[in-house]
Amino acid sequence: MIPKDIIVALATPSGAGAIAVIRISGEGALQLVSGVFKSVSGKDLAGQKSHTIHLGHVVADGKVLDQVLASIFRAPHSYTGEEVVEISCHGSPYIQQQLIQLFLRNGARMAQPGEFTLRAFLNGKMDLSQAEAVADLIASENEASHQLAIRQMRGGFSNELSVLRTELLNFASLMELELDFAEEDVEFADRFQFQALIERIESTLKALIDSFALGNVLKQGIPIAIAGAPNVGKSTLLNALLKEEKALVSEIAGTTRDSIEDEMVIGGIGFRFIDTAGIRDTTDVVEGMGIKRTYDQIEKARVVLYMLDAPAVLADKEVLKRTEGEIEQLSARFPTKQLILLANKTDLLPGGQEQEITQRLQPLIRKHSDNARVIAVSARQGSGLEELKQELLGLLNTGALRNDETIVTNSRHYDALLKALEATQQVRQGMEAEVSGDLLAVDIRQVLYHFGEITGEITTDDLLGNIFANFCIGK
Amino acid sequence: MIPKDIIVALATPSGAGAIAVIRISGEGALQLVSGVFKSVSGKDLAGQKSHTIHLGHVVADGKVLDQVLASIFRAPHSYTGEEVVEISCHGSPYIQQQLIQLFLRNGARMAQPGEFTLRAFLNGKMDLSQAEAVADLIASENEASHQLAIRQMRGGFSNELSVLRTELLNFASLMELELDFAEEDVEFADRFQFQALIERIESTLKALIDSFALGNVLKQGIPIAIAGAPNVGKSTLLNALLKEEKALVSEIAGTTRDSIEDEMVIGGIGFRFIDTAGIRDTTDVVEGMGIKRTYDQIEKARVVLYMLDAPAVLADKEVLKRTEGEIEQLSARFPTKQLILLANKTDLLPGGQEQEITQRLQPLIRKHSDNARVIAVSARQGSGLEELKQELLGLLNTGALRNDETIVTNSRHYDALLKALEATQQVRQGMEAEVSGDLLAVDIRQVLYHFGEITGEITTDDLLGNIFANFCIGK
Repeated sequence: MIPKDIIVALATPSGAGAIAVIRISGEGALQLVSGVFKSVSGKDLAGQKSHTIHLGHVVADGKVLDQVLASIFRAPHSYTGEEVVEISCHGSPYIQQQLIQLFLRNGARMAQPGEFTLRAFLNGKMDLSQAEAVADLIASENEASHQLAIRQMRGGFSNELSVLRTELLNFASLMELELDFAEEDVEFADRFQFQALIERIESTLKALIDSFALGNVLKQGIPIAIAGAPNVGKSTLLNALLKEEKALVSEIAGTTRDSIEDEMVIGGIGFRFIDTAGIRDTTDVVEGMGIKRTYDQIEKARVVLYMLDAPAVLADKEVLKRTEGEIEQLSARFPTKQLILLANKTDLLPGGQEQEITQRLQPLIRKHSDNARVIAVSARQGSGLEELKQELLGLLNTGALRNDETIVTNSRHYDALLKALEATQQVRQGMEAEVSGDLLAVDIRQVLYHFGEITGEITTDDLLGNIFANFCIGK
Repeated sequence: MIPKDIIVALATPSGAGAIAVIRISGEGALQLVSGVFKSVSGKDLAGQKSHTIHLGHVVADGKVLDQVLASIFRAPHSYTGEEVVEISCHGSPYIQQQLIQLFLRNGARMAQPGEFTLRAFLNGKMDLSQAEAVADLIASENEASHQLAIRQMRGGFSNELSVLRTELLNFASLMELELDFAEEDVEFADRFQFQALIERIESTLKALIDSFALGNVLKQGIPIAIAGAPNVGKSTLLNALLKEEKALVSEIAGTTRDSIEDEMVIGGIGFRFIDTAGIRDTTDVVEGMGIKRTYDQIEKARVVLYMLDAPAVLADKEVLKRTEGEIEQLSARFPTKQLILLANKTDLLPGGQEQEITQRLQPLIRKHSDNARVIAVSARQGSGLEELKQELLGLLNTGALRNDETIVTNSRHYDALLKALEATQQVRQGMEAEVSGDLLAVDIRQVLYHFGEITGEITTDDLLGNIFANFCIGK
């Protein structure tokens, strides 16, 4: 059953601003607002058309609470699919509070987090994966995660599944038909076509599942581990990278950036730089624990930046040896991990040696796979940073992002896709083993079930509760 | 000259929320938005009616930035009086920033603080006192300051001045006419009627000027000084008063209260409780300075709460004597200041003694004017607080607030009213001295000038700059 009671919430961020928007949705929302709204034109709000805006005063107990604009959305042409009124009032917290209290007194109740979007889903305005994209969109902080959320919200993902689902449903019903006529031994469902469809589903699912690795890091930020001895200039590098980014963001007044340390956007893509402890081999228990943590961080990272003090390495055999040892250890443990050797402090060397330095340090990475290269930088002077950025962006296969391919970003979808793939493979194996139609039908239903989990044809209250609890109030 | 270029700003509070509103105003604003807006209905936004809402996507460089609602307001039927488009987008700071940057690239510029309202004033949508009330309204944190701002915004103040101004203008032009016919010695302006008008203006101005004392404290919060020896329970009292208030505010999720210490709302009116140092008479220089500060605070306060430890005063002759001395000193210096003696810690006395305590402490205030009374409280248990609150509210003559009278809250208006009164009095004196019409006309023009300063018929760029600089961006 779809709830129809009237819910109200502040839809704009809390705090003071020029204006604030209060959203009211449910059967009778327009009548409720109309009861406290005196239109400047003298007309009754409740008689006005959908998608129109009206200037008036909200009046309670004979007192004017505020001059507001009321926007009317009649069902089903609203965000929730219900009757919706949005009140655009002056942005004082006092007024916001007074207006919400007034609507509560007159029969509305406070909306739960995500309740407007939940209703949009329940009223068929969007499927579940689109609803989830709304929260992702609001949380997105860079171009990549924003584009992924927009695509998902616009139904790119759902459309792809929906086509496969329809074809599969067709076959499934033909198959069920065969079961009804089992004694006559007819085949309504063409086995060759069916096999081709199953293979297509399998390969689509595999591609979607593979895309999650990229989608997940694009959504969470790409983890980059920074290793190297103390004082080689790690924090100077991070500050230098961060500085350019911040200058860009602060151009627009009124926007704030919640900067979590060492998180930054390069070329529209979020990166998370994780400063690790040392790698040095040791038998000391305490230090050994530090190393284990470093290894865990590197394990999870997409790329390791190993930073070294170039003048020191070139001048001091001891330093060179120690550095060599650490890199060898790294390569031994993570032979295929992408590795960038950052030769820092080039500004302290006689000019124009970048080329030479990278060549002289090349032997340090000879034991690593082809996934390694040396870049000369001066974190202090900012030289070589552009090359580093391009390298970081180039290491990622962001082709899918550019080509508008569907990229899975949601771990709930990922799980459902894995299960759908498993069921699909069982269907294929069943066909190869020529099992009976009724057994095939069971597995096909499993595939359909997991497709439905993603788009929300199959839900439970628990699942909906979990998903929408992460939304903000007012959405 | 009224600027017509296109300005843009975030109109809702910054930060993340369900939605955010971006406001664009100026000649060609609709065309500008229409160029990046793909309506879901397929219709061109630029061809749509005023006060309608349209669902669509903002697209830049072939990429969808967001799904938004665009609200159209055609000139002059908008807040600024110009063509206005309001974009209601998903409330992520990233999207807000991207959209604003897009509009900036396409020809808009960032709005200055208050620039939308400045344009509303310049385009005759509101007078200057109404524009000032918009900022007051957004800043209002309690019922009283909110009601004052709403009344001023709706033109209550301006209307009152406007009636007087029109009548005065009538007389002034008759008077000028007389000057033109000076040689014929005719009197177009009836001197008796004119005298009656001047008296009416004078008494209206005096009433408005008098109202500022109340208006100012209602807007700023009513200052209450708290005096008394250490450990008599001052902060316990403040916490007890504050607690009830906070419980009320936190009922509504999504609203935040910027609590400045010891500022609170009682019965819809803002109070500022100022904890003072001691009053004890002393010759010590350092302590003497502290006392000077205390006296300054009491001077500015509307009421003094003198708090004492009732059990200690009743039991200990030394304490009684010291208390008596302090109160006498207070009465000697501020004989007419409203004084409330708070007999605290009544919970430590045998039950039911409140009546007795107030009577036994009555002699302490015998040297004060009638403006003093004793209230027995237990800050710790919360008893007597209601009586204290009622006393505080009763001490204020808030009749004007209830009776919808005009109350001046703005010190700029107050200054102009004082000058207008001075000029009015000169007109009256001139009439009594039977000075010539041309001399009277000069003073009348002065009165009109100061009226015009309030409503904005008379302005300078400096004045406008000062007023609107205090607005938030987006308003």
